[in-house]
Amino acid sequence: MQIGLIGLGKMGGNMRERLRNAGHSVIGYDTNPGVSDVADLADLVQKLEAPRAVWVMVPAGAATQSAVDDLKELLSPGDIVVDGGNSRWTDDEKHADELGEHGIGFVDAGVSGGVWGLKNGYALMVGGEQEHVDRLEPVFDALKPEGPYGYVHAGKVGAGHFAKMVHNGIEYAMMQAYAEGWELLEKVDSVDNVREVFRSWQEGTVIRSWLLDLAVNALDEDQHLDKLRGCAADSGEGRWTVEAAIDNAVPLPAITASLFARFASRQEDSPQMKMIAALRNQFGGHAVESARR
Amino acid sequence: MQIGLIGLGKMGGNMRERLRNAGHSVIGYDTNPGVSDVADLADLVQKLEAPRAVWVMVPAGAATQSAVDDLKELLSPGDIVVDGGNSRWTDDEKHADELGEHGIGFVDAGVSGGVWGLKNGYALMVGGEQEHVDRLEPVFDALKPEGPYGYVHAGKVGAGHFAKMVHNGIEYAMMQAYAEGWELLEKVDSVDNVREVFRSWQEGTVIRSWLLDLAVNALDEDQHLDKLRGCAADSGEGRWTVEAAIDNAVPLPAITASLFARFASRQEDSPQMKMIAALRNQFGGHAVESARR
Amino acid sequence: MQIGLIGLGKMGGNMRERLRNAGHSVIGYDTNPGVSDVADLADLVQKLEAPRAVWVMVPAGAATQSAVDDLKELLSPGDIVVDGGNSRWTDDEKHADELGEHGIGFVDAGVSGGVWGLKNGYALMVGGEQEHVDRLEPVFDALKPEGPYGYVHAGKVGAGHFAKMVHNGIEYAMMQAYAEGWELLEKVDSVDNVREVFRSWQEGTVIRSWLLDLAVNALDEDQHLDKLRGCAADSGEGRWTVEAAIDNAVPLPAITASLFARFASRQEDSPQMKMIAALRNQFGGHAVESARR
Amino acid sequence: MQIGLIGLGKMGGNMRERLRNAGHSVIGYDTNPGVSDVADLADLVQKLEAPRAVWVMVPAGAATQSAVDDLKELLSPGDIVVDGGNSRWTDDEKHADELGEHGIGFVDAGVSGGVWGLKNGYALMVGGEQEHVDRLEPVFDALKPEGPYGYVHAGKVGAGHFAKMVHNGIEYAMMQAYAEGWELLEKVDSVDNVREVFRSWQEGTVIRSWLLDLAVNALDEDQHLDKLRGCAADSGEGRWTVEAAIDNAVPLPAITASLFARFASRQEDSPQMKMIAALRNQFGGHAVESARR
Repeated sequence: MQIGLIGLGKMGGNMRERLRNAGHSVIGYDTNPGVSDVADLADLVQKLEAPRAVWVMVPAGAATQSAVDDLKELLSPGDIVVDGGNSRWTDDEKHADELGEHGIGFVDAGVSGGVWGLKNGYALMVGGEQEHVDRLEPVFDALKPEGPYGYVHAGKVGAGHFAKMVHNGIEYAMMQAYAEGWELLEKVDSVDNVREVFRSWQEGTVIRSWLLDLAVNALDEDQHLDKLRGCAADSGEGRWTVEAAIDNAVPLPAITASLFARFASRQEDSPQMKMIAALRNQFGGHAVESARR
Repeated sequence: MQIGLIGLGKMGGNMRERLRNAGHSVIGYDTNPGVSDVADLADLVQKLEAPRAVWVMVPAGAATQSAVDDLKELLSPGDIVVDGGNSRWTDDEKHADELGEHGIGFVDAGVSGGVWGLKNGYALMVGGEQEHVDRLEPVFDALKPEGPYGYVHAGKVGAGHFAKMVHNGIEYAMMQAYAEGWELLEKVDSVDNVREVFRSWQEGTVIRSWLLDLAVNALDEDQHLDKLRGCAADSGEGRWTVEAAIDNAVPLPAITASLFARFASRQEDSPQMKMIAALRNQFGGHAVESARR
Repeated sequence: MQIGLIGLGKMGGNMRERLRNAGHSVIGYDTNPGVSDVADLADLVQKLEAPRAVWVMVPAGAATQSAVDDLKELLSPGDIVVDGGNSRWTDDEKHADELGEHGIGFVDAGVSGGVWGLKNGYALMVGGEQEHVDRLEPVFDALKPEGPYGYVHAGKVGAGHFAKMVHNGIEYAMMQAYAEGWELLEKVDSVDNVREVFRSWQEGTVIRSWLLDLAVNALDEDQHLDKLRGCAADSGEGRWTVEAAIDNAVPLPAITASLFARFASRQEDSPQMKMIAALRNQFGGHAVESARR
Repeated sequence: MQIGLIGLGKMGGNMRERLRNAGHSVIGYDTNPGVSDVADLADLVQKLEAPRAVWVMVPAGAATQSAVDDLKELLSPGDIVVDGGNSRWTDDEKHADELGEHGIGFVDAGVSGGVWGLKNGYALMVGGEQEHVDRLEPVFDALKPEGPYGYVHAGKVGAGHFAKMVHNGIEYAMMQAYAEGWELLEKVDSVDNVREVFRSWQEGTVIRSWLLDLAVNALDEDQHLDKLRGCAADSGEGRWTVEAAIDNAVPLPAITASLFARFASRQEDSPQMKMIAALRNQFGGHAVESARR
């Protein structure tokens, strides 16, 4: 089928390629004219035959909102917009309402796959009305991995991004699990070769996984990760997962611990531990270390 | 090769079968005469040709200690004992010393695989001297999964059980990760079908794993896990992992949170939350609930 | 000075009494005519001399918003509204803007003290412009405890509720600290009398505090808290504290653990632990317990 | 009464002074001859009249064990040894048995008070047989703070150190509570003066405490704690508290989080966060930071 694709960065560009490889007709737009197929959004919309489908693949927040704002003016009743970016699920209902006032359908799609997606396919978690989802099925089929898995119509508008957000929350805690285990193994003398322990776990164990495979890849490149600094960004979904849990009074101790570990990892010095040091000094006369200049 | 095997329970019985399928000669001993190949330990030792190898596969603690105590009297210099049970790594050096005084070698083997091991092979993490490990290689080869993974000589005596212990610690946090995500998804209205979300994750996602496959199996049997009580035992390794972390001043927030969640899950009522309720009542006049009778 | 007071519940009623005891003229309004000094809000405003000060002491959220909506129509430029309820700090700037468009000032006041405030005074954390805060000083003076402490002008609009919110976050973790210690002491055999241990801690220790005094009171009423169920509500500030921390990438492991412990305490059964039980059963054949009917 | 006191460091020296101020006859021994009243342990024992009481105030572990080993040879049946150091409670029963074989009594005393104890008194948590505890009552009376609190006979041998250990565990989490709150307040723009917020909390709030007073002292010396590094040691009791909790299957999320925060604070770089960074790089092509040289 024919589809418009807004945003041709690392993810969007690869998705265009995978869709074209599957025989779909993709018209891509990007603010970078070097990769864009059309001059502007109006041009994109004009080149698509009604009823149109436009996949938005731009950063969550202002950029996605801007695309929605533009598309609700440019598109026609019966068209559909897919938000495949990392939008917060709470934005989806708002976007669906804004577009719905113009008779335009809305589907949210959480997309997993990163740099491996072009080759292996992208896992898709989709939210929206059945009718809208059905019309996009050929596109989802082309993007998803081969085989029975990798795609779900999770529920109403917002359910796709919600499911993807929880996926990322789980991802945070799984990564933290391996990371904690790795640090402990590296610390003790009796274990000679932690990398080979990790490698051995790739078969027959309870903890074998794709992330474990990646860990082994990383250790093959840098056995003790000496080249890296122990600091990690977080991209929003982890935070939103914890916020959703708080809204729903669901305890998430492991996922939240994983998020907080990332926060702490980015601090040059820990303000809260300054207070701990100060208190110990006050009541016990315990020595404190001076701040590094 | 020929090997003696002490303990023919669920794990030991299956391991005997897998070893025999691979062409090894296994003489098994169990206190249950219905499954034992020999009358007693002395009989077992007598039937083995020197230098002997005896694999101990009995519960950690008293039963393993008892087997070590008996074997150090019955075996001869040059023989080797393998402890394949879930012993705490701190016991290994002690057992190695006790046997070593009699000229008997010792190897510790952490074994993963559970009920799936007979078919898929057992992941093995082994600690001990190179010479002892080398002599047991045919046995390890038969027990481990096919392919390049599933076996590692992790280091000195104790390293095998240490690596297996950390494996289990990681397992605790991975299970907790999926469990937290599942509860959150089940809680929100927009997501219609959490089981299908989990199923879809089996391909193309960052969090695909064998445990995820098992979660889908479980949800296929009981979609909302209505038949189960939310309470989980812990088998020692999780506790030991946290203790080892404390010994080594390694922070393990996610693994420890997972262990504590299990502790809490087994309490009929939470004493600490009684105190929270009592304090809220004291300072704020907040209502309290009476204990259930 | 003269002040209007909206909301004469447990907190507001006591505050009216404390203000009157200090010689202030308080005109109170409540939807319950049995305690109200005036018929309605218009009546309240009419009875106050300009420039007026009106203290709003109603539940956060809809009730507070409704009071702000009414007051911005009824009051005159130069008047001041104080929100002394448990509003989320993010509402304060909105309320200040809405009232500011009508020339009405706004001050937010976080109030601590609970049922003890009438006698001991209320700790006040105040946010707003210096000029507005200065005009309310006689009221703050009357409400606060005697002595040098118990009152702070914390910063701009919102700072008062933010400081009070963090106070409550700290409170959650302190309560959790005592509660965890109490449970552990109650669990071990060697300690005969945990209540007396707590009582002894009231002097000379690092952990003496008002909350500890309350814990002793509670244990004097019910030595092992047998009469209580271990379940605790949360009133919003704990959640907001964690959300503010996430917004600011500040790790709050102890406060968040305390919040999650309350969430878990209110669950009849733990969905996430059902998943843990299901996974253990899948890979290890571990027994599961059936849900209680 | 007359008492021998082994160990005249910061704690022991002050305790000697407080005991003498109360009219007791203290004979102190220290390896530092500059502060010791006697030449050696034999001299100490000889100068004491039977039945003797000897208070051991030396570092936990080897030093305390050595004192016990010496005293069991030097003392006579009917004498009593008090271990007032920070021994692990599991050592107490061992020491009681070793001394008991020689007819010598044993009492364990957890002591809190730090540098403030000389003036304010030391909180004492005592374990042992009633008869032994009774004989030492004059000494406990002199050391404890004035007033009804600050002393408890907590239970059997070991109960004193156990109660003191839990005290310290609670202390860890309380300090962490204030520290987390302080960091969050320092982070936001709306709050002008966090130190004054803390100061105001010293009266009328739920969270007023001696630790809060100390926090204000510390902020008065260094308003933003700029002079300190955010790193904190831990002295054993926090670790033991978590280990005791694990032994007893008691969840301690806040106390453990506080302990782990200290562990993390002492790491130059976080190995586990290197692994997180490596994994993010593997699956998402996310940028990593190089280790600092």
